Amino acid sequence: MKQVFTGIAELYTPRERLERAALAVQDGRFVWVGAEADLPEEYRGWPQIDLGGRSEGPSAPGGRRYLGVVPGLVDAHTHLVYGGNRLGEYLQRARGESYEAILAAGGGIYSTVRATAAASEEELYELAAARAALFLAQGVTSLEVKSGYGLLPEAELKMLRVIRRLKETLPQRIFPTLLAHVVPKGWEREKYVEMFCRELIPEVARRGLAEAVDVFCDQGAFTLEETRQILGAALSHGLKVKVHAEQIAHTGATRLAAELGALSADHLEQSTQSDWQALAKSGTVGTVLPGAAVILRKPFPDARAMWDAGVRVAIATDHNPGSSPLYSPWLAMQLTMSLGRLSAEEVLIAHTENAALALGRKDLGKIEVGARADFVVVDSSSALMPLYQWGHTPIHAVYVGGRQVFPSG
Amino acid sequence: MKQVFTGIAELYTPRERLERAALAVQDGRFVWVGAEADLPEEYRGWPQIDLGGRSEGPSAPGGRRYLGVVPGLVDAHTHLVYGGNRLGEYLQRARGESYEAILAAGGGIYSTVRATAAASEEELYELAAARAALFLAQGVTSLEVKSGYGLLPEAELKMLRVIRRLKETLPQRIFPTLLAHVVPKGWEREKYVEMFCRELIPEVARRGLAEAVDVFCDQGAFTLEETRQILGAALSHGLKVKVHAEQIAHTGATRLAAELGALSADHLEQSTQSDWQALAKSGTVGTVLPGAAVILRKPFPDARAMWDAGVRVAIATDHNPGSSPLYSPWLAMQLTMSLGRLSAEEVLIAHTENAALALGRKDLGKIEVGARADFVVVDSSSALMPLYQWGHTPIHAVYVGGRQVFPSG
Ligand SMILES: [Zn+2]
Ligand SMILES: [Zn+2]
Repeated sequence: MKQVFTGIAELYTPRERLERAALAVQDGRFVWVGAEADLPEEYRGWPQIDLGGRSEGPSAPGGRRYLGVVPGLVDAHTHLVYGGNRLGEYLQRARGESYEAILAAGGGIYSTVRATAAASEEELYELAAARAALFLAQGVTSLEVKSGYGLLPEAELKMLRVIRRLKETLPQRIFPTLLAHVVPKGWEREKYVEMFCRELIPEVARRGLAEAVDVFCDQGAFTLEETRQILGAALSHGLKVKVHAEQIAHTGATRLAAELGALSADHLEQSTQSDWQALAKSGTVGTVLPGAAVILRKPFPDARAMWDAGVRVAIATDHNPGSSPLYSPWLAMQLTMSLGRLSAEEVLIAHTENAALALGRKDLGKIEVGARADFVVVDSSSALMPLYQWGHTPIHAVYVGGRQVFPSG
Repeated sequence: MKQVFTGIAELYTPRERLERAALAVQDGRFVWVGAEADLPEEYRGWPQIDLGGRSEGPSAPGGRRYLGVVPGLVDAHTHLVYGGNRLGEYLQRARGESYEAILAAGGGIYSTVRATAAASEEELYELAAARAALFLAQGVTSLEVKSGYGLLPEAELKMLRVIRRLKETLPQRIFPTLLAHVVPKGWEREKYVEMFCRELIPEVARRGLAEAVDVFCDQGAFTLEETRQILGAALSHGLKVKVHAEQIAHTGATRLAAELGALSADHLEQSTQSDWQALAKSGTVGTVLPGAAVILRKPFPDARAMWDAGVRVAIATDHNPGSSPLYSPWLAMQLTMSLGRLSAEEVLIAHTENAALALGRKDLGKIEVGARADFVVVDSSSALMPLYQWGHTPIHAVYVGGRQVFPSG
C-alpha cells in the first residue's frame, strides 16, 4: 500500500522540526520524509491524503488548511487491565490518611487484586479496551500493558490472556509484560519467588504471553536479591527485563537494571547521581512516571538532571487505579515540563522515541525512513499546541502503520 | 417552572454528602433538596427528570442508572478574552529562557495586548465564546472574565463590551471585571493611574460594564500605593474590588485587600501567615491559581495552611494565554489536592461555594434551598469521579437555573 501525506504545517520527527512537510508511506513504513516542495517525482503519482484538507476551520492562504504532526505517542508503562477503581482510597489519601492504614483496612493493591479476580476475562477485556480507546484518542499508538494484579499463577495467566486479546484486536500496538508485583497473602516469599522463576516465567515464555518481565523492587514488595533472581530467570528464558525502581525507598534497583542491560528502570523518585551515571553508561532508559509522583505527593524525579547526565529519559502515564489514575500522556508531559524542568521538545522525545527504546523498539516513536508509520495529526497548525493547552487536547487524527485509526470510520 | 430531579446516586452540596438524592427546582432556584425517599408529597406531582434515566451504560439494580451531582463550578478568575496565543513564549520559557528576556524581545503580556488590539470585537467574542464552551462542557456554570489586555481606555472598553456580549448570549453566568494590568508603554505611571481612576472607572461604572475592579499589584505592574488609589476609586463608584496579590514579589496587597473588604486576594504564591490571618479575619477569599503556579514553576501556594488558618480558600483556572493556558477546573482542583494538600471534598468547596463568595454571591456554588439551580451531573455514580480520573473528565450534563445547557439540544 502506497500513500503520500501532505498538508502538514509543522512536523517533529521528534528530534527535528520540519515546516510544510510531506510523508510517503509504503506497507506501513515511512519511505520518504521531507519538505513538501522537495517531494521526489516518483512519489507524486501515489494516492495522496491531504491531512488538513478535510478539516473545518480557518484556512491557510489559498483555501487550504495545514496541521501539525508528531510521532505516535508510546506509553511504555501501564497497568491498563484491572477490575474496579480505588476512588475511595484516593479520597482517603487526599484527606491525609496513610497508605499503611489504608492497606491495613484491606485497601491498596490487594483490593485491586480482589476486584480483578472477581471480573471475568470478558469484563477485564472490555474495561481495558475502553481505556485504550481513550489513550488512542490522545495519540497513543503503542501501549505496554502489565499483568501483576493476579499474583497467583493462574490469575497472572488470565491477565496475560486479556492482554493478548487486546493485542489481537485493538488498533494500537500492545506490548505485554509479566509483572512480579507483590507476594500474595498466604505465600512464603521464598516459595513465591521460586514459583515465579521456575513455573510462571517458563510457562509465559513458552506460550509467548509476554515480551518482558518487570519486578516491583521496593519496600513492601520485592528485595533487590529477589529482583535479581526473577530478572535472571526472565533473561534465561529469552525475555527482556525492566524494573520498578527507587519509588518509595532507594534499593539499588536502577543499578541492577543497568547491570542486566534492562530495557528501563521506571519511577526514580529517589534515584541519585550514581544511578543516572549507570543508566547513561548502559543505555538503559530511565522512565519517569509523573502521575504517581504528583498524585502520591512524592518528590518529582529530577528529569532535568537525568537528561543532563546523559540518561535516555522516557515519560509514561503508569496508568493504574491506585497511584496513577492518569488518562493523559499530554498531562504527563506537561507535568514533566513544569516539575521536571524539561522543555517541550524534550518531553516529546521522552514520550515517543525514548519511550520506544524502553520497549526495545528503534522503529517506533519517530518519523523517519524505515520507521513504522505511526503518527498523530494535531488539530492546530502548531504541532506542540497540545503541550500548551493544559486540559484540552486538540487531536485531529491518529495513524498506525499508515492507516487512520482515530477517528474511526 | 417547576421540576423535580431524581436518579442521583450521590450529591455534594458541597459541604454535605447525600445518597439517593432528589432536587426540586422552581423558577431557577432549588426549593427542596434531600433524600429521594423523603421527597414531600407536594413535589411528587411535578414534572420529573430522571438524571440517570436517559443514559446508556451499566444499570443499577432494577434497571435504573444513578449518577453523581455536584454544584455548578464557579471560575472566579479568568482572562478569557484575548487574541492570539503565547505558544512560542511558552516553549521558550520551558527551555529555561527568562521572562525578562522574552519581555525584552517583545513577548509577554504586550504581545497579547497587540494581538487583542488587532482582533475585532466579533473575533474576540467568537474566541472567548469557544473557550467558554469548553469550560461549560466541564461543568463551569459561572465565569468571571477580566479585561486588562486593552490597557488604553478605548481598548479596555472594547474588551468590556465583548464581555457584556458574552454575558448576554452565553448559557453561563458571566461576571465582568475591569483589570488594571500594567502601565502601557509611552504612558507616565502617574498619568495612567489618574486616567484609570478619574476617567475609566467612572465610565465603566456609569455604563454598568463591570461588577468589580482588579489590580495586578506586583513587581513590574502596580505598586501597593497605586493599587490603593485604584481600588479606592472603584469603591467610591460602588464597584467591588479584588487584587492579584503576592505572585512574584510580596507587596502587602493581600493585607490591603483584607483592609478594604475586597472580594478576594488571588495568587498568593508568596503569601505569609500574617496575610492569611488578615484574610481569615476579614472574610476576604484567598484564591489560589494552580495553573500559573505550576506552569511558571513557582512555589505552589500553601492551600493547606491557608485553609487551616481559617481562610476561605477558592480555586480558579486563571485561564490566560501567558502564565496559565489552563482549560480544566478539574485539573486545577487536582493540582491543589496534590501540591496544595487539600482533600477532594475541600477542593470541591473551593471551586464552588468559596469561589462564589469571591464573586460576592451566596446563592451560587451550592445546592441548597434558595440557591440558584446550577449543577453538574457527573457520568459516574460517584460524584467525585472526575477528581480521581486525571485527564479524563466524565460529565453527563450541566444545568444552569434548572435548565439543561450541556449537552445542548
Ligand atoms: Zn507501575
Ligand atoms: Zn490573573
